[in-house]
Amino acid sequence: MDTRPIGVFDSGMGGLTAVRQMIRMLPGEDIVYFGDTGRVPYGGRSVETIVRYARQDVAFLRSFDLKAIVIACGTVSTTALDVIIEENHIPILGVVEPAARAAAEATKNGRIGVVGTKATIRTGAYEASIRKLLPEVYLTAKACPLLVPLVEEGRFKRGDFVSERIVEEYLSPVKAQGVDTLVLGCTHYPLLREIISDFMGTGVTLIDTGEQAARAIAALLTERDQLNDRTRNGERRYYASDSAEDFAATASLYLGSNIAGSVERIDIELYLNKAWRSTKARPVE
Amino acid sequence: MDTRPIGVFDSGMGGLTAVRQMIRMLPGEDIVYFGDTGRVPYGGRSVETIVRYARQDVAFLRSFDLKAIVIACGTVSTTALDVIIEENHIPILGVVEPAARAAAEATKNGRIGVVGTKATIRTGAYEASIRKLLPEVYLTAKACPLLVPLVEEGRFKRGDFVSERIVEEYLSPVKAQGVDTLVLGCTHYPLLREIISDFMGTGVTLIDTGEQAARAIAALLTERDQLNDRTRNGERRYYASDSAEDFAATASLYLGSNIAGSVERIDIELYLNKAWRSTKARPVE
Repeated sequence: MDTRPIGVFDSGMGGLTAVRQMIRMLPGEDIVYFGDTGRVPYGGRSVETIVRYARQDVAFLRSFDLKAIVIACGTVSTTALDVIIEENHIPILGVVEPAARAAAEATKNGRIGVVGTKATIRTGAYEASIRKLLPEVYLTAKACPLLVPLVEEGRFKRGDFVSERIVEEYLSPVKAQGVDTLVLGCTHYPLLREIISDFMGTGVTLIDTGEQAARAIAALLTERDQLNDRTRNGERRYYASDSAEDFAATASLYLGSNIAGSVERIDIELYLNKAWRSTKARPVE
Repeated sequence: MDTRPIGVFDSGMGGLTAVRQMIRMLPGEDIVYFGDTGRVPYGGRSVETIVRYARQDVAFLRSFDLKAIVIACGTVSTTALDVIIEENHIPILGVVEPAARAAAEATKNGRIGVVGTKATIRTGAYEASIRKLLPEVYLTAKACPLLVPLVEEGRFKRGDFVSERIVEEYLSPVKAQGVDTLVLGCTHYPLLREIISDFMGTGVTLIDTGEQAARAIAALLTERDQLNDRTRNGERRYYASDSAEDFAATASLYLGSNIAGSVERIDIELYLNKAWRSTKARPVE
């Protein structure tokens, strides 16, 4: 047992879909969440900017004494995971590896689709990770840049004509490839699950990256004997780089529960690659 | 004549629609443009964050010796203009006042609509400014949060079904009020002019905030005898907080001309409310 909290971060609110699963599976764990709502979205930005922002996010989280960090952001997991692992000496989990494993296990016909932000799809990280496990797999990937803004506008419910139309437009070429498994490579996308599932059909398994990351951290902590007792009442603290009120107001959509009063605003720009400096003593780029 | 450059900034690329008009009207002027592409969009963020970002943007621009600054961003102009004017002792022009004047002059039936980002509409700044000029005016305003992502995805051409549908959804209540003038209160929106005009009908005058800001800066410089000769070949320099290549690649959409090679990337987070500190010597909030 190790009562230190698990740190979780995302570019904004999407990572809360992972926290929701973690709370369900690991109710005894303390969680510190940071959502970079002052700079969201990351998905269309350059690699250099994403790496820089990720370093700052980790530097903030490491102002707490953590037992592990979950990168609950598809964009950061595909773009900056190696850098973050190299620079930090605690276990770091991204969403790619667990989702790739689940997809490889789920597929029956060996045809898997991947959707995510522009930055995520540009890296090809999900595909590379799946191919390692399943060398003969057929893969097709599609960037879906408008899905995050649509989710953030609350337009994810069945019957939203625009979201249904956009999902159809993005997913038609993926569906046409006959995939039986689709990786939702962005933690915002589980909110669109019904619309995506309606379009893809019941024969297609949707892989929820947040859920898989929660399973992976549960396995890791079990293996290291760091898991808290399930009867312990885990505490959760939420931090955002924009308004705490706005964060609390929207969080329940992703989290399924109300967190008013437990959100605090921080100034992420004060965390200038701090973790990196302290572990490496190299000048800031 | 005053050959110092004019500084122009926006949350991202949208302000280039104002620069385009400035180049057309004031070919002899040097222009320094900053687009905060590393933190775009501003329109959904809190007032506090918008003010903070705007101060940093101005602090960067003021590292040049400028004769004036144009805030080519509807969100900053409606949210942070007063703060920026108070803290800087050079002429600062936003997009609100010039657009309000143009709208007040254009309307025949005294019914005016305003569209913009969430932050812009929340302030009511366009409405207040129009009402000062035209106390009896009937005003109706509508936030259109998805228009910026759609424009940034290049989906602004006639025939884009999703953009046409979203424009229809946002503008139906505005059209139903019988306005004869519509203020496009965000510098991204002129790219959607055809779709918006098709929906609103030819009887409705669209007010392009970038164009009106360019007219206003021309008038101001003429009045202060600071205008450069039209035969002078004005230089333009562009700065962005994310990738210079990405900026150059998209800029031509907004600007109508190619600027590859004249874009530089800067680190906006190094400009921590600098202008404010230096003029006021108060601690940074």
